[in-house]
Amino acid sequence: MPQQALSDLLWPGDARAGDLFGDAAVVAAMVRVEQAWLHTLSGTPVDLSGLVEPDDLPALAEESEASGNPVVPLLALLRSRLGDAGLLHAGLTSQDVLDTALVLCLRETTGRLLDEVAAQIEALCELADRHRDTPMAGRTLTQHAVPITFGLKVAGWLTGVLDARDVLAAAADLPIQIGGAAGSLAAPTALAGAPGRARDWVARTAAELGLAVREPWHTARAPFTRFADALVTCSDAWGKIANDVLVGSRPEVGEIAEGTAEGRGGSSTMPNKRNPVLAVLVRRAALAAPPLAATMHVAAANAVDERPDGSWHVEWATLRTLSRRTVVAGSQTAELLSGLTVNAARMARTLDAARPGIDAEQRKFGADAPYRGATDDIIDAVLARAARESSGRGRADRRTAR
Amino acid sequence: MPQQALSDLLWPGDARAGDLFGDAAVVAAMVRVEQAWLHTLSGTPVDLSGLVEPDDLPALAEESEASGNPVVPLLALLRSRLGDAGLLHAGLTSQDVLDTALVLCLRETTGRLLDEVAAQIEALCELADRHRDTPMAGRTLTQHAVPITFGLKVAGWLTGVLDARDVLAAAADLPIQIGGAAGSLAAPTALAGAPGRARDWVARTAAELGLAVREPWHTARAPFTRFADALVTCSDAWGKIANDVLVGSRPEVGEIAEGTAEGRGGSSTMPNKRNPVLAVLVRRAALAAPPLAATMHVAAANAVDERPDGSWHVEWATLRTLSRRTVVAGSQTAELLSGLTVNAARMARTLDAARPGIDAEQRKFGADAPYRGATDDIIDAVLARAARESSGRGRADRRTAR
Amino acid sequence: MPQQALSDLLWPGDARAGDLFGDAAVVAAMVRVEQAWLHTLSGTPVDLSGLVEPDDLPALAEESEASGNPVVPLLALLRSRLGDAGLLHAGLTSQDVLDTALVLCLRETTGRLLDEVAAQIEALCELADRHRDTPMAGRTLTQHAVPITFGLKVAGWLTGVLDARDVLAAAADLPIQIGGAAGSLAAPTALAGAPGRARDWVARTAAELGLAVREPWHTARAPFTRFADALVTCSDAWGKIANDVLVGSRPEVGEIAEGTAEGRGGSSTMPNKRNPVLAVLVRRAALAAPPLAATMHVAAANAVDERPDGSWHVEWATLRTLSRRTVVAGSQTAELLSGLTVNAARMARTLDAARPGIDAEQRKFGADAPYRGATDDIIDAVLARAARESSGRGRADRRTAR
Amino acid sequence: MPQQALSDLLWPGDARAGDLFGDAAVVAAMVRVEQAWLHTLSGTPVDLSGLVEPDDLPALAEESEASGNPVVPLLALLRSRLGDAGLLHAGLTSQDVLDTALVLCLRETTGRLLDEVAAQIEALCELADRHRDTPMAGRTLTQHAVPITFGLKVAGWLTGVLDARDVLAAAADLPIQIGGAAGSLAAPTALAGAPGRARDWVARTAAELGLAVREPWHTARAPFTRFADALVTCSDAWGKIANDVLVGSRPEVGEIAEGTAEGRGGSSTMPNKRNPVLAVLVRRAALAAPPLAATMHVAAANAVDERPDGSWHVEWATLRTLSRRTVVAGSQTAELLSGLTVNAARMARTLDAARPGIDAEQRKFGADAPYRGATDDIIDAVLARAARESSGRGRADRRTAR
Repeated sequence: MPQQALSDLLWPGDARAGDLFGDAAVVAAMVRVEQAWLHTLSGTPVDLSGLVEPDDLPALAEESEASGNPVVPLLALLRSRLGDAGLLHAGLTSQDVLDTALVLCLRETTGRLLDEVAAQIEALCELADRHRDTPMAGRTLTQHAVPITFGLKVAGWLTGVLDARDVLAAAADLPIQIGGAAGSLAAPTALAGAPGRARDWVARTAAELGLAVREPWHTARAPFTRFADALVTCSDAWGKIANDVLVGSRPEVGEIAEGTAEGRGGSSTMPNKRNPVLAVLVRRAALAAPPLAATMHVAAANAVDERPDGSWHVEWATLRTLSRRTVVAGSQTAELLSGLTVNAARMARTLDAARPGIDAEQRKFGADAPYRGATDDIIDAVLARAARESSGRGRADRRTAR
Repeated sequence: MPQQALSDLLWPGDARAGDLFGDAAVVAAMVRVEQAWLHTLSGTPVDLSGLVEPDDLPALAEESEASGNPVVPLLALLRSRLGDAGLLHAGLTSQDVLDTALVLCLRETTGRLLDEVAAQIEALCELADRHRDTPMAGRTLTQHAVPITFGLKVAGWLTGVLDARDVLAAAADLPIQIGGAAGSLAAPTALAGAPGRARDWVARTAAELGLAVREPWHTARAPFTRFADALVTCSDAWGKIANDVLVGSRPEVGEIAEGTAEGRGGSSTMPNKRNPVLAVLVRRAALAAPPLAATMHVAAANAVDERPDGSWHVEWATLRTLSRRTVVAGSQTAELLSGLTVNAARMARTLDAARPGIDAEQRKFGADAPYRGATDDIIDAVLARAARESSGRGRADRRTAR
Repeated sequence: MPQQALSDLLWPGDARAGDLFGDAAVVAAMVRVEQAWLHTLSGTPVDLSGLVEPDDLPALAEESEASGNPVVPLLALLRSRLGDAGLLHAGLTSQDVLDTALVLCLRETTGRLLDEVAAQIEALCELADRHRDTPMAGRTLTQHAVPITFGLKVAGWLTGVLDARDVLAAAADLPIQIGGAAGSLAAPTALAGAPGRARDWVARTAAELGLAVREPWHTARAPFTRFADALVTCSDAWGKIANDVLVGSRPEVGEIAEGTAEGRGGSSTMPNKRNPVLAVLVRRAALAAPPLAATMHVAAANAVDERPDGSWHVEWATLRTLSRRTVVAGSQTAELLSGLTVNAARMARTLDAARPGIDAEQRKFGADAPYRGATDDIIDAVLARAARESSGRGRADRRTAR
Repeated sequence: MPQQALSDLLWPGDARAGDLFGDAAVVAAMVRVEQAWLHTLSGTPVDLSGLVEPDDLPALAEESEASGNPVVPLLALLRSRLGDAGLLHAGLTSQDVLDTALVLCLRETTGRLLDEVAAQIEALCELADRHRDTPMAGRTLTQHAVPITFGLKVAGWLTGVLDARDVLAAAADLPIQIGGAAGSLAAPTALAGAPGRARDWVARTAAELGLAVREPWHTARAPFTRFADALVTCSDAWGKIANDVLVGSRPEVGEIAEGTAEGRGGSSTMPNKRNPVLAVLVRRAALAAPPLAATMHVAAANAVDERPDGSWHVEWATLRTLSRRTVVAGSQTAELLSGLTVNAARMARTLDAARPGIDAEQRKFGADAPYRGATDDIIDAVLARAARESSGRGRADRRTAR
């Protein structure tokens, strides 16, 4: 099924996420799960990917209300197209297919994010190193505190991004979901003739899809909540960067600015305006993300029985929205960082103007200028962490998220 | 611009909202705002509604990132189509157009919701009256408490819906937003020649759009947070109904059931299943709504300057999602209530089986059976409230939300 | 029972809320509800207020776990102290007592808030009028937009506070909760001999407590969610003010500053620091409030049966936390506004430095300087609204919240 | 300083958390941080623990408003008591002390939680094994699906608890926070004479406190958000258990029940009631937790400068509330599980009554009864995971959280 880029008029930048988690992508993922299972059961490779057309999507979406999920109408469509559907979906339950399809989409999310994060880390390392000696006023609670360097500030940004990367990597190894109607693998076992063989089918399907194996988790939703929390941890880190850029690009501060791009930052009425659009949009995403992860936890906390009566259904669109927005914000942050303009002269001027107040602590300790403490060691330590993780675990994560 | 129904595969039932708040509807609303303003300034009726085609939407969405909002690319498009754009958008700022367009979309939301709520109230009144004498076990903290009647339970549902209706009605009279670049009406005044005339322009535009007049509220966002809170208050009330239906349709309880519809409630693997799909989907909406209103408040609390650096941008998609989902849930609740099946015999059987325990309080007070207290008075009072509000203020609200 | 001021080390400023909603206040409110009901039933005035001592509170709190709410151990205590408890609590259920006690505490919250809001409005009116001609740079998306006056900005703050006041006033008329075990008034009716007399008892108890009458709302929680939403609407409005103060008191901007108070704003290490502490603490409250109202809605949406299995219990501490924090933030905002220092010279200097860019729109429209549009009309309109509401509805609200 | 148990009347069960994170505990932790730093700088062991008395707490709390945090008044008090304060607090900033004190309190939280979780796991393993052959109806979307065993259901509970334990363990290794006024270690370096020596001081202080070392994270808050997310992941898992207990203890289901304890579950008016109080209170905690973690993320996303203007202050009380409530819910869940009553006969009866519908899938696949699939393998796999983690990593985690 050809995939179209989506775009949301009310979430500017949304097109950066491309077709990620769009209806077409979700249907393709569900088809891929059914295909892998069918392959496992029949022993014969099978290609179902051409059976659903883009034109089928609206009807699928509309028909999903009757059963409460999109798997039932998808199966009806696949069966009508296949003629002989044979073992299609045999032994699975709707949640097996939809959960595993969500996992496949989230893996795509992870891959996209790790690319953006790698680009951010590269830009941040470069900035931190280049500006390790660029003095500026440190600020706490909005007021001048003590002098710092811009490189130290960037090392703080980098710490946030590296932390987010670690949290994402720890959450990224999402497992397959196959448990059958009530999580006992009863139907697969009936088909396989023995529980061990049914479990082997699960393992083989997981291997074909490149997913980890796990006991059924229909109502133990930590894999999804952990992933959602990781997405928010990413946007938290980017939000901090955006906030600093927004303060720094206030004309009265004027220390940092977004790169200029043709047509960017214009106003509908004020010819003079050059708005820090990327930072504004990243901040937007950071403000909107936390309640979405909370929604995932509210859903998890309301799980009941062998499949819950509404809280499962909450998760789908929430994961999609959170995934797309995080990918968009990651891309915008990477672009923002790569084009960042640093006005070292203005930083120096503001620092000078802040004297002698800003040097009060230095005088209290009778210390020499520049009052930079362990700035170099801290920057070096953070850069070393970035280098270490990018060369080592980074590659492993990328493999996981293929 | 012809409007297409939307549909979201991951939010089954979404199609019930039709084209509400879709990209096409939002663009149409923005065009309508520009048109009303242009009419006011030029004195000549003008029809801009045909200038934007559905095919324009993806590009508009994508281009909205450069300026951070969709108004700038929309204006470019309108100007290119108009040839001589004249006074188009003269004196307005992006936020004037987008906020007022959101208000127009929210008014459509209100109208849709009041229709659904009216249908719910009708069904609830009928149920409460019909079952005022249908005895059943009252339950608190999951345990049998004292006998009640199903009519009394329905009167409780109705109270929730009437409360929600009141809260919605109080929030529905959303005002126009016209303030110019920084809320002083500077450009409109420059064009009008005098502040009084500029304010008169605002009033005339508001009249043409059927909106209330208000001083600029670019950064005082209570109109939007109050509306979002009202939407959540609606889904809270419906969530309570859905929860009771879900408990009541558990096979071990078996007291109430969703109406059966062809193909509804089926399972992908279990031929025996008839799932209470509408209640499940309504409960889903009720669980997912509160964080969205919280998002609106987080945005409002982060307002700063004369237009905020990200928190304004948070609101747009949030209002859309919340509006569509609430309309969908309202429609599903109305259908659920109109088709509800009540098993009075089963209620009676369960009540009998709960004896003598469930009569313990009655015995404590030496009261006669049936132990129904002021049930009739309470039901009558709630029915009277429903009748009073539907005949009086109801009509006024409908007028407001035209 | 003597009440002690509380104080929370991790919520600086908490002591401003005094004993509001503390355990002692809640117990006193519960005792007052039992007393009013007992008075109604027995026809004899009775004073239970001295029966519970501060030393009783820890045991009451601890014993509340066994029954899941504090009413059961309170009744045991009252009975042990009374000797002959007679009609104490006769016909009531725990939720009747606790909900009504919460309403009494929330009424105290309302009274405290309306006092703070009145002080804020007074300060804001004075500031808006005094600075109606104080020119400054208007800012949108952090960048200079067009000139405004500080009075216009304050009029925007005032709009937010007036909106919040309206929302609070509309939510403040909280009703009594008396429904008996399952909301049918069965036990009161048994005691009264007739439903009409039972309902009359409810009305008389409500009158004694100064509360509105209402049909039982054990599981229709809009009165509480609406109140919580109103509290957040207040902190939203104050958050906007705090954000502007924080930007304005950045040394690079330097346009506004908190009043200085002995010892305020100091740092543990930097002798130079004067932090805008009040604004910081108000912003803190505004950021933390929205999720608490969402918690109330999540609770309402999970209501089930005649008393829910957990979501009722969520509300109590949530309402307390939200109430205390909002009162604290309201007090801090009032103090912040009354002591605000405005640096008009600095505003003028920044505006001049922003030229000619900031005048671009003015030039586009060929308008004369000063480019202030309808600033005076807008300020006057907002001041008039403040005056109108304070003289009229204001008094009525205060009466309601007595 | 002697610590008193706290107790919150409006959060029944709160006393289970003892003095965890109370004002006294927080002050003691701050004193311990100052003491460790002073020891490091002076080279001489010092005991500050007796300097602050319980009677000092209210004043400390009240005075914390002036500086916006409790460190400044604590230092004033310590200095007044010490006479010669010497190097007390030398080189530190308030955030260093408060953040590290929070970390110490959170470590106490972790230790308490791991104890409760270990008790839960023990009870769950026993239940899963004992009931691996206890047949019951599996339920999806409230309806009978296929037969399962109660042991399988418990294995699902156990999966949730093990997942939560893993997430908690991964978040538990919280680091020290020492960065000085703006995160550069400028003052410590001035005191130490060289950055390497200042960093060595940090390492030695961390060692004395038993904490991990880390570059300053004043505005990179993933350590705290991750911990908060882990707490919510715990209450999610317990919420699922509570929900199943609540459904199972409905009289119409009657399959499981809380253990009976003297006086537990009583009603204020209905002598017949035995409410499932522990499950109700656990469900309460699960519903209320997600918004608190969202609050931590909103705070993180609003970080700015070298110390933020409000969002830092949001974290303190949020972490406290979330910690206490999670510990309480963990304890209640452990007690609930250890006393759970299982009615196998009732389960069997319901399953029989659900036939033949519940056997429809079995018939479809022509499978023999009992239709239990891989139930034993799944239970064994989950039990093996529990055993493996308890013997291996479990011990390591406990060590970390000492």
